[in-house]
Amino acid sequence: MSSIFEGFLSTLEVQEAFGDRRFVAAMLRFEAALARAQAATGLIPEGAAKSIIGSCKVELFDVPKLVRESGRAGSIAVPLVRSLKEAVGLFNPGAVVHTHFGCISQDVVDTAMALVTREALALIATDLDHAIRALLGLAERHAATPMLARTLMQPASITSFGLKCAGWVAPLVRSRQRMLVAAERALQLQLGGAVGTLAEMGEHGPRVASLMAEELGLRAPLGHWQTQRDEWVALGCELGLLVGSLGKIARDMALMAQFEVAELAEAYEAGRGGSSAMPHKRNPVGAMVALAAAQRAPQRVAALLQAMPQEHERALAHWQVELAEWPQLVMSAHGSVRAVAQVAGGMQVDPARMAANLEAVRASLPAEAVTVWFAPDLAAHAARLAVTQIAAARADWAKATDNVASALHQRGSPQQAGSGR
Amino acid sequence: MSSIFEGFLSTLEVQEAFGDRRFVAAMLRFEAALARAQAATGLIPEGAAKSIIGSCKVELFDVPKLVRESGRAGSIAVPLVRSLKEAVGLFNPGAVVHTHFGCISQDVVDTAMALVTREALALIATDLDHAIRALLGLAERHAATPMLARTLMQPASITSFGLKCAGWVAPLVRSRQRMLVAAERALQLQLGGAVGTLAEMGEHGPRVASLMAEELGLRAPLGHWQTQRDEWVALGCELGLLVGSLGKIARDMALMAQFEVAELAEAYEAGRGGSSAMPHKRNPVGAMVALAAAQRAPQRVAALLQAMPQEHERALAHWQVELAEWPQLVMSAHGSVRAVAQVAGGMQVDPARMAANLEAVRASLPAEAVTVWFAPDLAAHAARLAVTQIAAARADWAKATDNVASALHQRGSPQQAGSGR
Amino acid sequence: MSSIFEGFLSTLEVQEAFGDRRFVAAMLRFEAALARAQAATGLIPEGAAKSIIGSCKVELFDVPKLVRESGRAGSIAVPLVRSLKEAVGLFNPGAVVHTHFGCISQDVVDTAMALVTREALALIATDLDHAIRALLGLAERHAATPMLARTLMQPASITSFGLKCAGWVAPLVRSRQRMLVAAERALQLQLGGAVGTLAEMGEHGPRVASLMAEELGLRAPLGHWQTQRDEWVALGCELGLLVGSLGKIARDMALMAQFEVAELAEAYEAGRGGSSAMPHKRNPVGAMVALAAAQRAPQRVAALLQAMPQEHERALAHWQVELAEWPQLVMSAHGSVRAVAQVAGGMQVDPARMAANLEAVRASLPAEAVTVWFAPDLAAHAARLAVTQIAAARADWAKATDNVASALHQRGSPQQAGSGR
Amino acid sequence: MSSIFEGFLSTLEVQEAFGDRRFVAAMLRFEAALARAQAATGLIPEGAAKSIIGSCKVELFDVPKLVRESGRAGSIAVPLVRSLKEAVGLFNPGAVVHTHFGCISQDVVDTAMALVTREALALIATDLDHAIRALLGLAERHAATPMLARTLMQPASITSFGLKCAGWVAPLVRSRQRMLVAAERALQLQLGGAVGTLAEMGEHGPRVASLMAEELGLRAPLGHWQTQRDEWVALGCELGLLVGSLGKIARDMALMAQFEVAELAEAYEAGRGGSSAMPHKRNPVGAMVALAAAQRAPQRVAALLQAMPQEHERALAHWQVELAEWPQLVMSAHGSVRAVAQVAGGMQVDPARMAANLEAVRASLPAEAVTVWFAPDLAAHAARLAVTQIAAARADWAKATDNVASALHQRGSPQQAGSGR
Repeated sequence: MSSIFEGFLSTLEVQEAFGDRRFVAAMLRFEAALARAQAATGLIPEGAAKSIIGSCKVELFDVPKLVRESGRAGSIAVPLVRSLKEAVGLFNPGAVVHTHFGCISQDVVDTAMALVTREALALIATDLDHAIRALLGLAERHAATPMLARTLMQPASITSFGLKCAGWVAPLVRSRQRMLVAAERALQLQLGGAVGTLAEMGEHGPRVASLMAEELGLRAPLGHWQTQRDEWVALGCELGLLVGSLGKIARDMALMAQFEVAELAEAYEAGRGGSSAMPHKRNPVGAMVALAAAQRAPQRVAALLQAMPQEHERALAHWQVELAEWPQLVMSAHGSVRAVAQVAGGMQVDPARMAANLEAVRASLPAEAVTVWFAPDLAAHAARLAVTQIAAARADWAKATDNVASALHQRGSPQQAGSGR
Repeated sequence: MSSIFEGFLSTLEVQEAFGDRRFVAAMLRFEAALARAQAATGLIPEGAAKSIIGSCKVELFDVPKLVRESGRAGSIAVPLVRSLKEAVGLFNPGAVVHTHFGCISQDVVDTAMALVTREALALIATDLDHAIRALLGLAERHAATPMLARTLMQPASITSFGLKCAGWVAPLVRSRQRMLVAAERALQLQLGGAVGTLAEMGEHGPRVASLMAEELGLRAPLGHWQTQRDEWVALGCELGLLVGSLGKIARDMALMAQFEVAELAEAYEAGRGGSSAMPHKRNPVGAMVALAAAQRAPQRVAALLQAMPQEHERALAHWQVELAEWPQLVMSAHGSVRAVAQVAGGMQVDPARMAANLEAVRASLPAEAVTVWFAPDLAAHAARLAVTQIAAARADWAKATDNVASALHQRGSPQQAGSGR
Repeated sequence: MSSIFEGFLSTLEVQEAFGDRRFVAAMLRFEAALARAQAATGLIPEGAAKSIIGSCKVELFDVPKLVRESGRAGSIAVPLVRSLKEAVGLFNPGAVVHTHFGCISQDVVDTAMALVTREALALIATDLDHAIRALLGLAERHAATPMLARTLMQPASITSFGLKCAGWVAPLVRSRQRMLVAAERALQLQLGGAVGTLAEMGEHGPRVASLMAEELGLRAPLGHWQTQRDEWVALGCELGLLVGSLGKIARDMALMAQFEVAELAEAYEAGRGGSSAMPHKRNPVGAMVALAAAQRAPQRVAALLQAMPQEHERALAHWQVELAEWPQLVMSAHGSVRAVAQVAGGMQVDPARMAANLEAVRASLPAEAVTVWFAPDLAAHAARLAVTQIAAARADWAKATDNVASALHQRGSPQQAGSGR
Repeated sequence: MSSIFEGFLSTLEVQEAFGDRRFVAAMLRFEAALARAQAATGLIPEGAAKSIIGSCKVELFDVPKLVRESGRAGSIAVPLVRSLKEAVGLFNPGAVVHTHFGCISQDVVDTAMALVTREALALIATDLDHAIRALLGLAERHAATPMLARTLMQPASITSFGLKCAGWVAPLVRSRQRMLVAAERALQLQLGGAVGTLAEMGEHGPRVASLMAEELGLRAPLGHWQTQRDEWVALGCELGLLVGSLGKIARDMALMAQFEVAELAEAYEAGRGGSSAMPHKRNPVGAMVALAAAQRAPQRVAALLQAMPQEHERALAHWQVELAEWPQLVMSAHGSVRAVAQVAGGMQVDPARMAANLEAVRASLPAEAVTVWFAPDLAAHAARLAVTQIAAARADWAKATDNVASALHQRGSPQQAGSGR
């Protein structure tokens, strides 16, 4: 998924999470879980299940060939299932008919997408925690550092840099919380069969679904979600919201890093943010990545919402649209949160310059305006607010990450999400 | 807000909710609550508060004039506050200085928007309940009515119309639930003052906010949300998701109402859905409204997300963008849910035609395909699924509406949301 | 169309152009032209045409009532045609059957939209010329005014303010040109009848269309464009492009107007751009309007493009979507161009501050970087470029407006577009 | 660029056009042309130019490594220029300093994007011509084939299938024409240097640009277009419009291919459009591809428009957004036009079923409605219209492709666009 045109707007890790190999491996996890569950319920023979499970190893497959064939087939599932059946047939011809039994392409693709998305969300959660930690640290260190408050891009009054940081961090903590809820709902097994009724599995459908969900660490929905995508798209919306909140931070940072303002700078890192032509430049490339995501994600969310009115029991094009847009949204989101985490972690703050900018405004205004809007005690006031808000954010963050831990514990899938604080 | 170009895509009720008069009234509720709270905390004299509260009556204001003046001022709050001060000054000149004390335009406009949005959400909740009730009724009556399952717009196998209805209703119930959560978070008092610090109110800011929130039945956030819009936009996302789920129903209905399919029809209503030129036509105008909303809402959500990276303590343009887009999204959403509720309530279902279409497919296929994919017991299977899913939806719906009731009870604001089941 | 939520993002003139009354008047122009043309071709009696034409006066109609009725009817054309027939019937009952003969709602609505859009485009063209003139003036005056060139929001090298202005103006001139071409194609008569065949008019359809187009000053397309909207949406794209180019200017201006940069300021105008709470503030409200448009227009264009795949001979919802989105796009565009024209016309430029910012950068860099990237002769180089680009822009602008004049001359509809330079 | 998630929504050819290797090759064409032009104007020594040109061979570069490094560098140009300098330095160390002289990353990337886009447009033009030819053929064969005209997804009256095809083809011909104009403007050399002034090349900048443009077959703009993207985005809009017009065709086809309507079918092709689970199904996968593009392209266009307000002399993020979105838009467009061309070329039309559907409507209506709206001579009327419109489309198409030919001739770059009729 690394592209010459946008690789630098994302991260290697999340590109790998949605890489061809990992996706094929996730599809094979589905097929193995299916066989195991169907054997357990007696739908297919134990021996067949063993053969199928034994073949569900990504190293047995020619992934680039599958990708090439998917172009013509119109789906990655079609060549994968064909290859899997061939592999199964080599050793146990009788098991071929039991492979991918009662399923449809969308079942395996949607479930695989949930599995790789879970990994991507864990990456996002980890970097989000890094960003929160760094910003809370800045907020604490600079709770009482006075600076200009600016509205409509003009100086307005006084705030403190710590209060500004507290304002940045609060929506990140809320995103941490809401994303968890949304992910709990969205990361579901897909198992509907040809038209959503699991008809071929007779009465065993629900039991198969429940066993598979258990094994894969996904939620088992009542029924399927082949054309009812609200919980999935709701997770997409959460990613859009996160990217928006990160974009606000990046925009503020880019403005504060302007030469004439100079209140902040991104940490210098060799080979990054330089200009080949102009060695004197130091570009805020972290902010750039987050701002790019903030421009792109809204359009991705719009595409997902637009694709919701899916026709009948499986739509013509809507699902394919969603499939194409989804990884890009998640990859943008990780690019953004990683960039903000790095910038926040290394941010160079210049309180003297903040004070100087403030003084310059004071000097430019009539005394009465200064008395009202730039009085020194306004900074102390902001500092007290900052302390309250930092404490609240810390408490909410602790709760959010505790919830993750307990949610994961119940699920027995410790790999599901990022580390705690 | 009724426009020649889109009035018919919304409802009169929701247009009135966002009408100029109601919005001005909501702003005056803010100003009155502010005065009362500031008097209670001693920030302004009791007498001044009384004068201000006495002037906060919408019938004292020339609303069209305010609207005209807002064009030049760039904000509705500027002329309103000026008019309010004039009104207060007529009887109590000393109270003028205590009017709108310590606030900024965004405080009153955001809070007023929360108040009118709450009314609009109540309208949406009511019609959503109507839609859910009607669809559940259809699902029950037709749990065992066999019909074609169609994928990629081609016949695939058998389902039942009841199961299809159950599939339609489930995301509506989830929306009912998620919207409640999102509204609880989003319907907040805005009170930040000039730059979000409430500096003019000194130590009394939090107490003023808490009293005002209590009076207005809104949540009191820690701090303000002048440039951190994630919870507000999250509510917008929920509306987008609802409109998407309604759009899926409308699309299916429009397809099933085609002359050649003829499995459904919208109830005939004089003066609606006719064609002036072609009296023989009966247009699915309910579906039209919901489909139009489903095409428009994603772009509105994208605009809200795009506006999130707001600069510093108040953005240049982003907030204005949000303000302009928001009412349109909510109005679209009510238009859509009302339309689906009406269509579902009067829907004419033709089981005979469903059976005939099914038979035609059977007749066109080789025997083996019929045996596997169109066996009669598939309908019974679908019927059993439908019964399970209907029961689950009823239970979830009951929970969602109970939550509303209890949430409202705690809040003591019975007008906040729609009626129960 | 003036709304409390977005009136200030547009202009009174363009709001009036899309106002209910003007739109009804435009629909009546269509009906009168239709009657005249049908009488000329013998399709309806001369006497009937006279009665119809005599009734096509907007002052005879209760416009607010039509708007209210349009909500239920799902179209403004249905109540209008009904009212028109009633009016015609009062004096000439026999003419009722000849009223709106052979037409469908979309014919009258699309044509009326083309007529009011033409007026709006004339407003846009006029203000665009003002903006171009003002920016060219600035470019000339400041061709040799050195200033910082900034890339990725960091100082990079030297340019001149005149060259910057020349860069701003060039896309406006191109928009002027491309919009003309797009408008020539898009401002078409719509006349397709019930299903696009004009069947009721028999062999006379093309002649009726040609006479009507002549009278209304619109292009007569071969056939109709009821579901083939490419030329109409292409005009919408041009508006989106214009708004984007204006947004770039506004963004640069807002950045340069920051207190710490202070190279530009919007002219002060009483009652505009002030803050009720903070009298010391001077907000760049012109830039705000243009930036708001630049955030909203892309979503409107997306909605228009999304609505293009219209079903069969008239779509369910797509056309209604377009109808609702279109006026908002045009109104945004005029708000933006008016704002930029005003700001450009009154812009306060501070060459001394430009020089000081430049010096400050020079002082901060190692000598070698200064020698290469901030050498004084770079300003002279930029000045020469500016002179060349200004001359080219002037020449292109002259050509663009000459084309307008000649195009209008051939058409004989001098009211079609804005004045020249 | 082939992705497991969307490869099947595009074509191998256009994926290759935007492939890493081809893009690097295009960048090297820029560098070679730059060296040649700079040598011709005396800016660099002839010997250095020869060394540089000799190294500008894609086979000398490790493309995957460049892609990997671009992630960290934030641009593909940075590692490419570094590698190029290394290669040059191996044989002619003195030429290193003359490599990429006076240029910036954006110059080489934008120009390379124009070069590969030109190839992609040629692919689009070729398939567009195929689609036009096939649809015109269908229109002629079926000019007099009666079928239902449908409005708001209900039968309305009679048209002919040929007239429907003529309606489909007209916007494609217009797109053919408009795209040419837009491409002529958009396919420009980018050469602005560090801040758009080409300062390092002194007086020779314009001459270097003109020589390079000549060699590369691109337009030489006056100045640069580093932050003025209107002509480039205008080309993107044209692609969006094309995809919209193709989407309309696909939607109609999908509706007509429904089992219950059965007026059309896509040609059967082994391994395409089948369902692994349900062998009886024949899915309209061509329509699917075009419909998917029609849902995605509007969001891409919105992203391009949203990215237009670029800050100062090079934006922070906007250009990167454009770079990421552009190839996806072009690839979608080719996927769509190829799909429609293939479907149109093999379309199976069932006039008997069209007649039967018509008869069924006739049988369902009162006699008077039949007399007016379903009279047999309406088909003849439609046939006559079809003949006129087909002739006009043929004439316009001939003109459009002649223009291409002559445009290319003047340019001397025969590879620029697709073949003629």
